[in-house]
Amino acid sequence: MRVEIWSDIACPWCYIGKARFEKGLAGFAHREEVEVVHRSFELDPTRAKGDTVQVIDMLAQKYGRTRDEANAMEAGVAANAQAEGLGYLAEGRDHGNTFDIHRLLHLAKARGRQDELLDLAYRANFAEERSVFDHDVLVELAVEAGIDADEARTVLADPQAYADEVRADEREASELGANAVPFFVFDRRYGISGGQPAEVFTQALEQAWKDRPLTMVGEEAGACDADGTCEVPQAGATS
Amino acid sequence: MRVEIWSDIACPWCYIGKARFEKGLAGFAHREEVEVVHRSFELDPTRAKGDTVQVIDMLAQKYGRTRDEANAMEAGVAANAQAEGLGYLAEGRDHGNTFDIHRLLHLAKARGRQDELLDLAYRANFAEERSVFDHDVLVELAVEAGIDADEARTVLADPQAYADEVRADEREASELGANAVPFFVFDRRYGISGGQPAEVFTQALEQAWKDRPLTMVGEEAGACDADGTCEVPQAGATS
Repeated sequence: MRVEIWSDIACPWCYIGKARFEKGLAGFAHREEVEVVHRSFELDPTRAKGDTVQVIDMLAQKYGRTRDEANAMEAGVAANAQAEGLGYLAEGRDHGNTFDIHRLLHLAKARGRQDELLDLAYRANFAEERSVFDHDVLVELAVEAGIDADEARTVLADPQAYADEVRADEREASELGANAVPFFVFDRRYGISGGQPAEVFTQALEQAWKDRPLTMVGEEAGACDADGTCEVPQAGATS
Repeated sequence: MRVEIWSDIACPWCYIGKARFEKGLAGFAHREEVEVVHRSFELDPTRAKGDTVQVIDMLAQKYGRTRDEANAMEAGVAANAQAEGLGYLAEGRDHGNTFDIHRLLHLAKARGRQDELLDLAYRANFAEERSVFDHDVLVELAVEAGIDADEARTVLADPQAYADEVRADEREASELGANAVPFFVFDRRYGISGGQPAEVFTQALEQAWKDRPLTMVGEEAGACDADGTCEVPQAGATS
């Protein structure tokens, strides 16, 4: 079974939702047969690269609130994160364009280290005040995830590297009707939007597992089986 | 929407079934949005490479029939093929191990020429009496399909090239419960076994299309949308 998770490193609910999903997965009997794939979704795709701001300032501006009100919003999210055992610094976090991080996550996927890099990047961004908008920090995180530093640097330096993969993920999100993240898709049958409680993830996993067998369409027809025997249907079935 | 078709070049019902599927696809309104992927399934995987025999002899031996009876069996299949407008020589066709053809079809897939090569290989095998068990013939077919001759030769000469891809397809067939081919899978939801009439394929395409939207699980939860806005659920939803 395959679970695809669209998310963005800048999205606190993706950070919290990943922990809740993993708790839900831990409670699922067939967890060993679940493949998890992380897909790209940018929260702020039109923001220029390099235009990195403090989250509190961004929130205050976007919602037209005071810094105190913005701080209170972050504190609310922090409480949710902490309830999941996740570190969360309620201030000092950067906000910016995440395209390069998504490209690096695709390199990590190709090297079988995507989940590791994503966890490290979330922690850096939300719990450690290390700016994931800084390429040097990203290279450090890649190395911690088990990726070659030179390879990470080469990908970050080339804006085309894995760019198509990021855009393909974003196109698929749109085709699936996902306009917010985290967005979880189970075998392309069931969807979950947002950082739901762990038991909702377990329920979706169980439902998708039950629905795995193909629904067969049509009757008996000409076919050849694995011992090379070909069955010829009766005359009249040639339509 | 994605349709996966497990088949073997040595399987006449796969040859006929492909034509019927394509007729069914032509009658489907969203045909432009259907991606078709061909997957490997060997009819006679334990036969040694190079142990190539005449089909009539193989049929006579396998079913314990006379050559005349085997010829009559082939004539029955030929009538089905001809009813689909497909050439079919009822004798003179070779039978053998198809692993190398599957490996070459995976190269063709990587080059975006899989469907072309499969059509050419079917025609060579069933309508033209060109032995697809001969590497020189396979290289000719690859070139006709638009693949570089040297690349085709290199793949055929290296028994490991694309071998894992062939085995992965076969493992997936088994996981999906396919023990005969052709086997058609629509978005991993619906299956069709055998060379069904065209209208059964249209019906499966329509059903799978209707079922495309994800079934959403769970209620409102914390999420961030594409303009960067994060919604914080009400207190108490932190479980």
